[in-house]
Amino acid sequence: MSKLWSPFVKQLVPYVAGEQPKMKRLVKLNTNENPYGPSPKALAAMQAQINDDLRLYPDPSGEVLKQAIADYYHISPAQIFVGNGSDEVLAHAYHAFFQQDKPLLFPDISYSFYPVYCGLYRVEPKPIALDEQFQINLADYQQDNGGIIFPNPNAPTGCLLGLAEIEALLQNNTETVVLVDEAYIDFGGQSAVSLVDKYPNLLVTQTLSKSRALAGMRVGLAIGHPQLIEGLERIKDSFNSYPLDRVALAGAAAAFADREYFEQSCAKIITSREQLSEQLTSLGFKVLPSAANFVFARHPQQDAAQLSIQLREQGIIVRHFTQPRIAQFLRITVGTDEQNTALVEALAELLNKQ
Amino acid sequence: MSKLWSPFVKQLVPYVAGEQPKMKRLVKLNTNENPYGPSPKALAAMQAQINDDLRLYPDPSGEVLKQAIADYYHISPAQIFVGNGSDEVLAHAYHAFFQQDKPLLFPDISYSFYPVYCGLYRVEPKPIALDEQFQINLADYQQDNGGIIFPNPNAPTGCLLGLAEIEALLQNNTETVVLVDEAYIDFGGQSAVSLVDKYPNLLVTQTLSKSRALAGMRVGLAIGHPQLIEGLERIKDSFNSYPLDRVALAGAAAAFADREYFEQSCAKIITSREQLSEQLTSLGFKVLPSAANFVFARHPQQDAAQLSIQLREQGIIVRHFTQPRIAQFLRITVGTDEQNTALVEALAELLNKQ
Repeated sequence: MSKLWSPFVKQLVPYVAGEQPKMKRLVKLNTNENPYGPSPKALAAMQAQINDDLRLYPDPSGEVLKQAIADYYHISPAQIFVGNGSDEVLAHAYHAFFQQDKPLLFPDISYSFYPVYCGLYRVEPKPIALDEQFQINLADYQQDNGGIIFPNPNAPTGCLLGLAEIEALLQNNTETVVLVDEAYIDFGGQSAVSLVDKYPNLLVTQTLSKSRALAGMRVGLAIGHPQLIEGLERIKDSFNSYPLDRVALAGAAAAFADREYFEQSCAKIITSREQLSEQLTSLGFKVLPSAANFVFARHPQQDAAQLSIQLREQGIIVRHFTQPRIAQFLRITVGTDEQNTALVEALAELLNKQ
Repeated sequence: MSKLWSPFVKQLVPYVAGEQPKMKRLVKLNTNENPYGPSPKALAAMQAQINDDLRLYPDPSGEVLKQAIADYYHISPAQIFVGNGSDEVLAHAYHAFFQQDKPLLFPDISYSFYPVYCGLYRVEPKPIALDEQFQINLADYQQDNGGIIFPNPNAPTGCLLGLAEIEALLQNNTETVVLVDEAYIDFGGQSAVSLVDKYPNLLVTQTLSKSRALAGMRVGLAIGHPQLIEGLERIKDSFNSYPLDRVALAGAAAAFADREYFEQSCAKIITSREQLSEQLTSLGFKVLPSAANFVFARHPQQDAAQLSIQLREQGIIVRHFTQPRIAQFLRITVGTDEQNTALVEALAELLNKQ
């Protein structure tokens, strides 16, 4: 703490990201990365950028990437915003839309960055409890608000909402921005991008860190009405003109263009997820239904914190949250089949020992 | 404009970056990029990152880069912050330190992003006029303030302050952060990094976009007392955990390690700058003494806006600002000798025609 800090910095409670260990040879199932690597075409596109042109600034508007996304979703580039990871995009959305006199609604069990942004931008948080089955009940969000944000599927639960439910919310909530954070949508959900033409207050965010396997390159995006996009651009152009570097722009655009690789790799992960869920269930775990690239599971007779420590001793890292309602759960990223088998075998052995 | 925007977004006046034209074969002397490309070792380090590991998040703390900077300046990694371009670093500094009840002091002719950040973070701006020779007079900054920021050398003038002057300011201004923005310091100035151990309220920012020729990769940094760095880290960890991608981290670290290439390329640019200044002077221009990789020049008989348009017609782009005090100046980036010759010849011809 320093007397030189702005007054509110003292009260900030920063986000704690999942660990990025430096050890090699770990079975790393803690930060929901893709086990399969980016499209070879994305790698080639990035390789082609590594030359003397890196002395030049990138295109500040990221047009090549916006066009690739527009082609993928059959929308206009004016409906697209791109940023340095979806975390930056979310932060700008708070700044552009959620600094209001009324509170921001979001699920009590959700992406733990949401309340952190409230601290940074001095937005009043109003967490809404998930129901007993850990599901979001959108009817609970039909109340006075300065904005609504939720992930679909939700994290860390993996539970999915249908588009009809989201549309019902939008029909009743027209005066504030509804942000659907689709970090994991490609692993089994239907994107709300199909609703943006109809609802000018809907903003959908996505990331290239999960289904497109580019976590190492930091690329995120938002899709919505051009007026919402303009609000985000105003924040961006008052913050950092060039958030995406030349390599990231080229790689992300190529990743969107390679639909075949993308679909195959998502399909493999979905198959592995179902297998992993079954295997964990056989071991006595209760596994929430997941539409993401992770599962959220608890064992009725085992302490989750303890399990997570024991797995770690064997070089397997999963994520454990200490929030009371979910302290008995583990969030396990779907890895390669080899990694998933290593996890299941280690758990089987730990459970046998007891 | 949209009713969905946060109230203050309407009044924001975003920064306007120099044009990044898509045409090839331009003599592009408008955004102070380095004509010589990054260190070959930086290119090799980036190349080595283009593989399946890009599916994994980068190191959120950027240790490899902090260590390379620490080695270069013989300081500790705890005195270093890294971000997505120095613009992001500056923005976080406003958020962390300049949101105070008192105004922020900065030169009236300076980096035009400074007042923009004031708008974004609702900081009261108090521009201090440069003197008649377009020099910063630091004695004018010894007044009640919530912070002080200035570039050294200044932009777009190129004029340099000596360390003794900066130290005199620091001796008299101990209660608020003094931020010295050293985007161009490597082209002829002495860095204030040597003062950070002595003045806990001094923050020095730098960029890899100029002397290290990595504008395309978006890397910036700040150096100061660990408590100032901690303030920046708190903002960063409440905004975006992973601002620097794997390729950028590796390239920037390698660029700092390759001292020989860096020194040679800065030396070449300094020689070219002196030559260009002389040639412009021969053509009748008044050229401010520059310690940067650009010159700031006006012709007593020529309208600068007009000249800039005429140069553009010949495929040569320089930067022209419309602010009244400097509307008769052109800011010209030092290019390769070939580019500088093209510029000088074009100007000679334009002046002859009149």
